[in-house]
Parts: sequence; structure tokens; C-alpha cells
Amino acid sequence: MGFSLSNSSQKLSSDSPIGIFDSGIGGLTVVRQLISELPNENLIYLGDSARVPYGSKSSKAVIQFSIQISNFLLKQNVKIIVVACNTASAKALSILKEKFQIPIIGVIEPAAKKAVETTKNGKIGVIGTTGTILSQAYFREIQDLNPKIEVFSKACPLFVPFVEEGWIEEEATSLVAKKYLAELVDAGIDTLILGCTHYPLLKKVIQKEVGSSVILIDSGHETAIFAAKVLKETNLLNFEKNVKPSQKYFLTDLPLKFTEVGSNFLGSKIESVEQVSLD
Amino acid sequence: MGFSLSNSSQKLSSDSPIGIFDSGIGGLTVVRQLISELPNENLIYLGDSARVPYGSKSSKAVIQFSIQISNFLLKQNVKIIVVACNTASAKALSILKEKFQIPIIGVIEPAAKKAVETTKNGKIGVIGTTGTILSQAYFREIQDLNPKIEVFSKACPLFVPFVEEGWIEEEATSLVAKKYLAELVDAGIDTLILGCTHYPLLKKVIQKEVGSSVILIDSGHETAIFAAKVLKETNLLNFEKNVKPSQKYFLTDLPLKFTEVGSNFLGSKIESVEQVSLD
Repeated sequence: MGFSLSNSSQKLSSDSPIGIFDSGIGGLTVVRQLISELPNENLIYLGDSARVPYGSKSSKAVIQFSIQISNFLLKQNVKIIVVACNTASAKALSILKEKFQIPIIGVIEPAAKKAVETTKNGKIGVIGTTGTILSQAYFREIQDLNPKIEVFSKACPLFVPFVEEGWIEEEATSLVAKKYLAELVDAGIDTLILGCTHYPLLKKVIQKEVGSSVILIDSGHETAIFAAKVLKETNLLNFEKNVKPSQKYFLTDLPLKFTEVGSNFLGSKIESVEQVSLD
Repeated sequence: MGFSLSNSSQKLSSDSPIGIFDSGIGGLTVVRQLISELPNENLIYLGDSARVPYGSKSSKAVIQFSIQISNFLLKQNVKIIVVACNTASAKALSILKEKFQIPIIGVIEPAAKKAVETTKNGKIGVIGTTGTILSQAYFREIQDLNPKIEVFSKACPLFVPFVEEGWIEEEATSLVAKKYLAELVDAGIDTLILGCTHYPLLKKVIQKEVGSSVILIDSGHETAIFAAKVLKETNLLNFEKNVKPSQKYFLTDLPLKFTEVGSNFLGSKIESVEQVSLD
């Protein structure tokens, strides 16, 4: 394609890959949505599995890790970076945007926007890791869009380990969800942002606890739609329909049960994974 | 004291500190036991909180992290290293022992030995992280001591996040414990090794699920006794009773809620913590 965006050292074109990163494998739920929304695009995924999870770590650490990863992705000539991690989006996105010249999008803005469009009673719930919730990133984003909306936030740190253990529909999972979500139900929210890339796998139990009238917002889905919009606006969408797009997966550690768990997140089989060091 | 152990570059003496490390703050339960068993000793603790947890990571990663940390501790002139992390003990101890010249002890051998001495019916249970259990380190250690003993192992990856969330006596905690421990109860074990430094905080719920007749072995406690024995044998015990021993805490990241959670593990207030980079 003829379009290009000048970068410090390289020419980017529409067939350059989309770079996506997450602290681990949760971001594969965002990849799944990107593949669905943008089936022609080449993708490069980096999961920082050597240092997962980010949710309980300091802002300083998360910013440092995110810069390292972005540098890695830029070396792969990506045309856009999708920060497919709520914690990194909350803590590092603004710094990444300042530091790098290609479009960089996070998962928070698209989900916040969709929630604001969706709510009828002006009461939005947000669930995520401790890091994401303490950052108040969703709260601020929603308030910027509409200061009249009330935001009820709740950190649910046990949801990630439950998903990774594969306990999706256990009695204990329901009990944990009930305990975490009770105050959001009491607050009368009508919209709930799933502010962690692991949470779409718990949609069923979460929906059951909050009730069928509450609309769940999947941050990965909204981010994929937003990524398509940004690529269109910057003339970087890939229209090469005849070429089978490539998907490359890099991890900083090859964890136990990766192929099994990762494929659950992605919704299809991960063909190959390469281990890289960022240090 | 006059005794010393020659090292490649430094003189070690009985007032040199004991080095202890863990993937995060779980090892503070071992520090607590060390302080109780060896009240005169100076201690240096390194928690690799930037990369916690180790339990689900590859052997290669755990070995690399453990070597980096041991080098850091050796620069602090430690006279012995206590690997206060079951995963690192399982995966890296033999390599650390080969690589470094000071005494290095892990948590597995002391706990396995105590369990073998304790069991009457020859049926020992072991619980730990996925990494520890898959390594079969406890199984091999017990089999070496007495091949007639039957070992029943169970990975309990949700126990660590429950402890870190502070959900010690919740209904959900009991449900999770029941689900994990049922097969060990069915197997008729009379001794259960708590093969993770977080688990002593769940002693009550674990004891309830396995029944009061099962004896729980706290690997941290056994390790502290073993450390005292090794220091005595190498003439490196500190007898300087008049000096207030120093305890220094280093972390690779300063996580959220550290002082609160860390003090729970240690059983007393952590006065100061320094952040260090190992890269």
C-alpha cells in the first residue's frame, strides 16, 4: 500500500503489523477481538510472562516494563501499539504516547466511552486488578466524558488466578464473585466495565451475580473497534485481502500450561511461540 | 568471633549476615522462624517482588532469577543463603550449591526430613504451587529418605492469591481448601507438608479440612532449625548477645500494600525497605 507514516528511523505502511502487549496472556482476549474486527492485519503479540502479573506492582515498575516492551515492538516495525493490559494502560499509556511517535492506544478509553454511551441511569461499575482500580484511570476517563455519571469501582484481584486455574464455573468462583460484586449491585449500576483482559472468561458468573439487566462492557472488544478507527484515520488499514495475515507470539517466559491456557484466551490454537529477553 | 570460612574474595565470620530470598514476601514467614530460632543473627532479605510469583514460571527463568539474587546477597557478604521459596528450592537449589561456595539451604530438605520422621502410617501429603509440585522435589527427597513412604501431592495455586488478598477465614477460602485437599484426605495421609511459604497463614483452614489428626509440617520452621544446625557445624553461629542484630529488607519492586501485608507475614512491623534492581 502507498500510505505511510514517518517514524524516527523506519517507514511504516499499512502492511506493517499491529503490536499488542500485555503482562501475560490475558491480552490474547484482545487479540481475539482484533482478529475478528481486523481480519487482514498482521499481528505481533508480546506477553511479559516473566514478570506477570502487573496488577499488584508499582507504577514505576509498570512504566519501565511498558517502555521496554514498546521498544521491542518498535524494532519489529509495528504501525500501532495496542496496550492490551488494563494496568499498563492505566499507569503507562500517557508516558508511552509522549515517548513514541506511532499511534498507541490503551483499553481504558474505548471501554469508558462505550460505557458512557450505554448507561441509562448514570451509574457505571468498574472492576479490575488492584493496580487498575487504585489508579482511578476509568473514573477519570468517565468523568472527563460526563462528570454527572457516578462511578463505582471494585478491585477483584482473585478473578485472575481463578481464570488461570481454569475454575470458571465452580461454586467458589460464584462465592468470590458475589462477595466482590455485592456493593456494585447495591449501588444500582446498569453498566459494568470488565476492566481486565482476563474477565471476559468469567462473563457468565459475573452476569449471573450482577443480574441480566446490567450491560457488561468488554474492554478488549471496544479496543479492537477503536484500533480499527485509528488505523482508518491514519490511512494504515491493511486491505491486502489475498494475503494470509501473520500472527507472531512472543513471551518473556514460557510458562507451564501455556498452550492450553493461552488457546482458551485466544479462542483458537496458538501455533508457535518464541521466547525473548527484554533486559 | 574468630571462626571464618574462606570465600572466593571475602572473609566470612560469624557476625556476617544470613541471606534469605524469596520470589516476594512469602519468605518473611521463614524470616520470622529464623528470628525465633536464631535471635542473635544479622539478616538480609531479598524479595523479588518485581517478578513474583515464581510458581507458574519456567525452570529456566527461576534458575536465572535465583542466580542473580544469590550474587546480590554474596555482595552483601552473607555467610549462608536460605532459599526461602519452595519453587526456587525445587528448581534452582542444586545449581546454586554447585555455583557458589558458601552453605546454601532450601526449604524442601528440612521439611521432607521432618515429615518422614513424623508419619506413622507412611502416607505423606504435600501441597504447594504448580511449579513446586510439578518439580516433584518433595517426592524425590522423601523417596530418598524412605522409598516405602507414599507421597500424595497437590498443587494449590489459589492459596497464594487468597493469602495476599487477606481472605484467610472466608467461606470461599474453605471451599477452595476443601476442593484442593479432598483427595489427600481420601488417601488417608497422617502428615501434610505446607510446601509454600504463604501457607502457614492458612494453617487454620487447612487443619480444619484435613482433620485434627493430620500433623502439618511448616517448611519455614524446619528450615530455621536446619539453618541453625548448619551454622553450628560450620562454626558460623553468632554468639554476640550484646549487639542488637540488624535486619535489612530489599525488594525488587515496592508493591501496593507491602508494609501491611509484609508485616502480617513477618509477625512484626517491617521498619524499612530498600528497592534494588538486579538487572
